[in-house]
Amino acid sequence: MKMNDKSPLQIERALYQPKLPEAMKGPVALKEGAKTTSVADQETIKKLFPNTYGQSVITLEKTNNQSATPVVSVGVILSGGQAPGGHNVIAGLFDGLKKLHPDNKLYGFLGGPSGLVEHKYIELTHEIIDEYRNTGGFDIIGSGRTKLEDPEQFDKGAAICHQLGINAIVIIGGDDSNTNACILAEYYAQNNTGIQVIGCPKTIDGDLKNEMIETSFGFDTACKVYSELIGNIQRDANSSKKYYHFIRLMGRSASHIALECALQTHPNMCIISEEVEEKKMTLRDIINQIAKLIAARAKEGYNFGSILVPEGLIEFIPEVKVLINELNDLLAHNGVFNAIPNDEGRREYVLQSLTPQSAVVFESLPLSIGKQLMLDRDPHGNVQVSLIETEKLLIEMTKYRLAEMKARGEYKGKFQAVNHFFGYEGRCATPSNFDADYCYSLGNVASSLISAGKTGYITSIRNLIKPASEWIAGGVPITMMMNIERRHGKEKPVIRKALVDLKGKPFQFFAQHRDEWAKGNKHYIFPGPIQYGGSAIVCDQPTKTLLLEYED
Amino acid sequence: MKMNDKSPLQIERALYQPKLPEAMKGPVALKEGAKTTSVADQETIKKLFPNTYGQSVITLEKTNNQSATPVVSVGVILSGGQAPGGHNVIAGLFDGLKKLHPDNKLYGFLGGPSGLVEHKYIELTHEIIDEYRNTGGFDIIGSGRTKLEDPEQFDKGAAICHQLGINAIVIIGGDDSNTNACILAEYYAQNNTGIQVIGCPKTIDGDLKNEMIETSFGFDTACKVYSELIGNIQRDANSSKKYYHFIRLMGRSASHIALECALQTHPNMCIISEEVEEKKMTLRDIINQIAKLIAARAKEGYNFGSILVPEGLIEFIPEVKVLINELNDLLAHNGVFNAIPNDEGRREYVLQSLTPQSAVVFESLPLSIGKQLMLDRDPHGNVQVSLIETEKLLIEMTKYRLAEMKARGEYKGKFQAVNHFFGYEGRCATPSNFDADYCYSLGNVASSLISAGKTGYITSIRNLIKPASEWIAGGVPITMMMNIERRHGKEKPVIRKALVDLKGKPFQFFAQHRDEWAKGNKHYIFPGPIQYGGSAIVCDQPTKTLLLEYED
Repeated sequence: MKMNDKSPLQIERALYQPKLPEAMKGPVALKEGAKTTSVADQETIKKLFPNTYGQSVITLEKTNNQSATPVVSVGVILSGGQAPGGHNVIAGLFDGLKKLHPDNKLYGFLGGPSGLVEHKYIELTHEIIDEYRNTGGFDIIGSGRTKLEDPEQFDKGAAICHQLGINAIVIIGGDDSNTNACILAEYYAQNNTGIQVIGCPKTIDGDLKNEMIETSFGFDTACKVYSELIGNIQRDANSSKKYYHFIRLMGRSASHIALECALQTHPNMCIISEEVEEKKMTLRDIINQIAKLIAARAKEGYNFGSILVPEGLIEFIPEVKVLINELNDLLAHNGVFNAIPNDEGRREYVLQSLTPQSAVVFESLPLSIGKQLMLDRDPHGNVQVSLIETEKLLIEMTKYRLAEMKARGEYKGKFQAVNHFFGYEGRCATPSNFDADYCYSLGNVASSLISAGKTGYITSIRNLIKPASEWIAGGVPITMMMNIERRHGKEKPVIRKALVDLKGKPFQFFAQHRDEWAKGNKHYIFPGPIQYGGSAIVCDQPTKTLLLEYED
Repeated sequence: MKMNDKSPLQIERALYQPKLPEAMKGPVALKEGAKTTSVADQETIKKLFPNTYGQSVITLEKTNNQSATPVVSVGVILSGGQAPGGHNVIAGLFDGLKKLHPDNKLYGFLGGPSGLVEHKYIELTHEIIDEYRNTGGFDIIGSGRTKLEDPEQFDKGAAICHQLGINAIVIIGGDDSNTNACILAEYYAQNNTGIQVIGCPKTIDGDLKNEMIETSFGFDTACKVYSELIGNIQRDANSSKKYYHFIRLMGRSASHIALECALQTHPNMCIISEEVEEKKMTLRDIINQIAKLIAARAKEGYNFGSILVPEGLIEFIPEVKVLINELNDLLAHNGVFNAIPNDEGRREYVLQSLTPQSAVVFESLPLSIGKQLMLDRDPHGNVQVSLIETEKLLIEMTKYRLAEMKARGEYKGKFQAVNHFFGYEGRCATPSNFDADYCYSLGNVASSLISAGKTGYITSIRNLIKPASEWIAGGVPITMMMNIERRHGKEKPVIRKALVDLKGKPFQFFAQHRDEWAKGNKHYIFPGPIQYGGSAIVCDQPTKTLLLEYED
């Protein structure tokens, strides 16, 4: 056997030519639309962003007269968690720049925003870019979670840009990273550095979206990978007919991923954190709901099923949120607590120190979860919510509840559960055609915005449920998406995070059908793995969320 | 949005026409080869199987004169864990039977072998079969783990067969199920029931193979799904550069899955249980090996990586095996132990009751694993090895070991680990083209063997690394694969289980390259998801294991 260093699909995907919007296939002109205002707190935000506030929405249009453009150098940064398609943003940016002028240069800052501050970079060449076309991952230059927030960092960034002759920085990131991109753009404009800053909407979580950003990239691919696995598991559940699968899905602050996966696979149940918060559901309410579902299915002879759980659920349950806050206050750097030698003693101490309400909540949790809350703490002493195995918590508590119900004759059935957590499995998957095309177009747009001297913009592609040729490309002032929110005790201008809208069509569609999906075994859908090289109906479909939001 | 009850890929795959060996595209003749003997213990096995021992190997050949065949009715059973392609075996069997005679009938026994004993069945019609072509899962008739072992069951089975006019039973299962198929075949022959029995080689574990059975079905698809995920995770590790991913893979008694996934993805490390046993490695040896790898990588600046762990590892570590046996003897129905109210007390009791050697092993395990060994027991009181989260055990112990090394200045690095377990994610995946074709052919062969009056045979397709048209189809007497082994304290005739052969080419290839793969980040391969509708090189490749075993 010949030892290959690439799989056949890697080799094939390297040759894929991403689809561009029709308007971007040749020379483009920028059409300036109406001036913009922020979504809220207009006066405050205008004051904070005197140079970048109020700019126009820009649309790219086909033109016949390619005007000469100045030679530019650009730096690109990958910020935060991985999302499929990041490499294509960079490839689209690179190709766009080279088309505008063969002498244009692209630098990649290494390991995330810290690369800018610490002056770690490489020049991206044709050879490097070609290695990464249509691939998953952020490994081309690496990513990182350093936040660009203070002027000292900004000045260090400007220094390296001036040294390398960089005219513009493209920051590929989520809502926080794009907020910071805007702050950086404003700072660089105020200080006449001559450095433009353009943002690019990334995040598998799907919580960076609004009327101008229909979806963030990576959401499509990640949800399709998770849905493939959920479909496979549902088929397994329905074959062996003996397990409930509790499947936790990445997506901490919003439940878009869980909702999209539910729309793709029709599980027996899917918990949506935003609904839990809206309805002020207690942990007990949630467990009762699960137990009721299981009892109803048992009556019909089904002792198996699928239950989707969003990663961030625990923080949306009001009384658990209070408990976590109390624990954070109580245990951070608490010498008395840290000196207690055993779990029983620690537990006792915690129970005595909490408010009575929180003590009740704490006591109701399985021992293992209580232990996790007491001991798995970050360097600031805070509970590490993302490490909590919420699906196991639900399984343990459901077991207990079903036993109670059985004792009262309210449940006759057998409950065996299997837990899963999917996150890392999808963040670096080979991008779907949708994400490959979308990302390549986003990168390409950035090159046009840079060439036109724009700053404080985020790249925007709309009309995404249509074929790529009909997509509308352009740029949106980042300030347009901002409002003032309280973060870590301070009022800050931030891009408004998009949680699941309980009045929106995706949730409404789910809410209309979930009772039907709860029953029996006939509703499961098995999406199968992402396909790349076949009919558009199999290979190019956008997410159900997009279809529901934008289809007439 | 129209609510579909099928995904686009489901709809497309329903139309796929599985490829058959050239010889099977028209009428076939059975060519009888040489008489056979069992792989070992010939005299004993001959005595146990007087009617089914020593038959010829059969090869199917093209013929021009289709001879008339009698009308037959067949019953089919899915036995044991799911494997992708089971539905295609049934579809191939159905189509084969209908081609031989339109009045031929196929019944499916429901819920596994118990369906035969309890007389639960359906008749499989065109409408039903068409719903399940090329799909994953065993949900068409369900599966189950009842073992067909005693004459009472056999007689009940014969009764329903006579009632329905069933002439032959096809049992789709692993090594144990095929052993039992042979015992059933022999019993039915001895008792002149007129019922033939044919087996079919299924299991994702890959441990049912020999010179006549090149691979069991499902192994291909399951390994490709797991490899997709491992590839995605490696890309993620190499992008964020901060986590070691410990990935446990299904496959309890053999490490074929882990080995195949390693060959497909080139992880930094892959533990092979058979090697652990052969080299009599202790748990400490394994942990040292992992810690050494991590320290070496840290020296080069890599604080991330991928480590594959076979599900059954723990049972292959000699001293842990002894511990588990002692615990099984000690704790099964032990009233004293069961009356102890808390974990500390139970732990104390166990430590005092074990042999000194096992007490040391028990004490070295993380508390959570010790607890699992004490408490997660099956109805017979035995430790449930498959529930042990071996990957977490390795993470915990590696952490501890690295801390020791750090204190001694032997390790400078940061160790953060993420654990995964993949099993249910792949058992019911949509079968790859390979498994779809292989399974359909296996089912088709079964119809020919039945029509020729054969019993005690297992269907066999060879030459699998070649295109399907060149495959060699036939049947092999099950007794040919048998030897005598001690199982649950009794000498029994069983199909010899195929463990990873440390002298075989797949392991040798792995052993030659693993030191290279251990280093850096340049060796990872990203297989991506299974593709169905493109070039043969992307869609139709067999496993690396098969290629290594059969390529010149």
